[in-house]
Amino acid sequence: MTDLIGGIEAGGTKFVCLVGTGPDDIRAETRFPTTTPTETLGKMLDFFRTQEIQHGKLAAVGIASFGPVDPNPVSPSYGFITTTPKPGWANTDIIGPIKKELGILEAGGFCVGFDTDVNGAMLGETRWGAAQGLDTAIYLTIGTGIGGGALVNGQLVHGMLHPEMGHVRIPHDRQMDAFPGNCPYHTDCFEGMATGPSIEKRWGSRGETLPLDHPAWPLEAHYIALALVNYILTLSPQRIILGGGVMEQRQLFPLIRSEVRSLLNNYVHTRQILEEIDAYIVPPVLGNRAGVLGAVALGYQALTTGSSI
Amino acid sequence: MTDLIGGIEAGGTKFVCLVGTGPDDIRAETRFPTTTPTETLGKMLDFFRTQEIQHGKLAAVGIASFGPVDPNPVSPSYGFITTTPKPGWANTDIIGPIKKELGILEAGGFCVGFDTDVNGAMLGETRWGAAQGLDTAIYLTIGTGIGGGALVNGQLVHGMLHPEMGHVRIPHDRQMDAFPGNCPYHTDCFEGMATGPSIEKRWGSRGETLPLDHPAWPLEAHYIALALVNYILTLSPQRIILGGGVMEQRQLFPLIRSEVRSLLNNYVHTRQILEEIDAYIVPPVLGNRAGVLGAVALGYQALTTGSSI
Repeated sequence: MTDLIGGIEAGGTKFVCLVGTGPDDIRAETRFPTTTPTETLGKMLDFFRTQEIQHGKLAAVGIASFGPVDPNPVSPSYGFITTTPKPGWANTDIIGPIKKELGILEAGGFCVGFDTDVNGAMLGETRWGAAQGLDTAIYLTIGTGIGGGALVNGQLVHGMLHPEMGHVRIPHDRQMDAFPGNCPYHTDCFEGMATGPSIEKRWGSRGETLPLDHPAWPLEAHYIALALVNYILTLSPQRIILGGGVMEQRQLFPLIRSEVRSLLNNYVHTRQILEEIDAYIVPPVLGNRAGVLGAVALGYQALTTGSSI
Repeated sequence: MTDLIGGIEAGGTKFVCLVGTGPDDIRAETRFPTTTPTETLGKMLDFFRTQEIQHGKLAAVGIASFGPVDPNPVSPSYGFITTTPKPGWANTDIIGPIKKELGILEAGGFCVGFDTDVNGAMLGETRWGAAQGLDTAIYLTIGTGIGGGALVNGQLVHGMLHPEMGHVRIPHDRQMDAFPGNCPYHTDCFEGMATGPSIEKRWGSRGETLPLDHPAWPLEAHYIALALVNYILTLSPQRIILGGGVMEQRQLFPLIRSEVRSLLNNYVHTRQILEEIDAYIVPPVLGNRAGVLGAVALGYQALTTGSSI
């Protein structure tokens, strides 16, 4: 057994698998599209089998998965993607095939960490990125959907299930924005108003094609700021990390910071909000590897807490 | 030194001081209005001095205070009420007088716990009330103001400062409700729409005088449910406890539960939401002693973690 960790970012669009110990020590990495569970999990297992031949058995594997998932170790569906609308993927056991097919359980010390993709990214940013040294923070991804993970007092938040973040209700002024929202559950919740597909439907063009001074961006910043203000007042994070495709539009960051301060209107008297907001609302340090390195961080966490399966 | 704990609920309207070990063992209790800091803290010290003569020195004291407060033990203003608009109370040191005047520090083992009133109530309900056995929960009080405390993974949430909860932004349909809101910071945030004074301004009568079938109640339940849905999606609590004067209107509970399920619209697939919502959104078990017993729980916590001052 090596001290190498396997990381799996199980995304709705693509899987990323990696073997290494951190962002500066990546031994192998592969990416492939998410098709059927059988084909996709098969490719995942093939990658790790090949890695085992080269490096020996892994010390731990972490999985950061699209959801909703069951992250409760004492539940019968622990390690499953549960009620996703993604065709073919509802009630898919992700941990099971790793446990069975990699056959590393016999080694006795094999640990598997499993959590949401965004809780994984939160933990990765805590270990190596923008949340180092903090005990309470939020990682939010805004892309084709919106999801958030949270760290409180140094631990990932699960509670009843796990944070969702995307579907919070926010004010929608129809005179300012006639777009009705496109969330199939809640119409004009945050996710219904502010994803990449919402931007495209509202303006008739994909966000990447809109100029930097297009009115799409202050409106997008307004919705994101409304949600952030609610998270700040509820969870009191020491920092908020914003990733995902929409946040590749870096012009959003100053607009969001300004709007958060404007919406809070001096109600929260903290250094972070009043003096250091540029360091309070930030992009992920791990960039497009936030997900898979988050999975590696989940593997390390499993190793430390000994949650062997 | 006894094993008795002193509890102080430092409220904006009244102070409650208690000596005992829990809800079934209250040795002494007093309540007096919150006037000036000098007079109010003087009465508080008089009560505990008398108790010391009778029972000996206390093992610990807990303070659950109106805010905003500074609950960060390494901050210079730790133990202070900070930027409150309450006349005379901004930047008031609450821990200091206890430390100096009770003179118990010489005993070496004297511990003081200090937190927001709602974090205190959250901890009290965790120790003796509606959140026993849970690791992640929310305590929300809805009265002349709205404030919330939270427990995550068995610990109170502080993060950047502490949760506020009351000032989250929620949708406000002006055709359904023309009341503009009365929050001095944010106009129609949750606190601006749903406190006791908001009800009185909107309808021209105090809530207690409105009949049970008045349209005030479904509207109030709608605003409370909007906020709860946002907390649920952000923090994933295993239970939400609703206290405070407005929640004395018990007819609100079934209305809120129904509206929370309606707003979530089957998005959160958990037993708590889908099958057991009557046990998910509940009143405090400790009733009108939730605050002061929460303070006692903070005293116990200080004793356990040894955060002596």
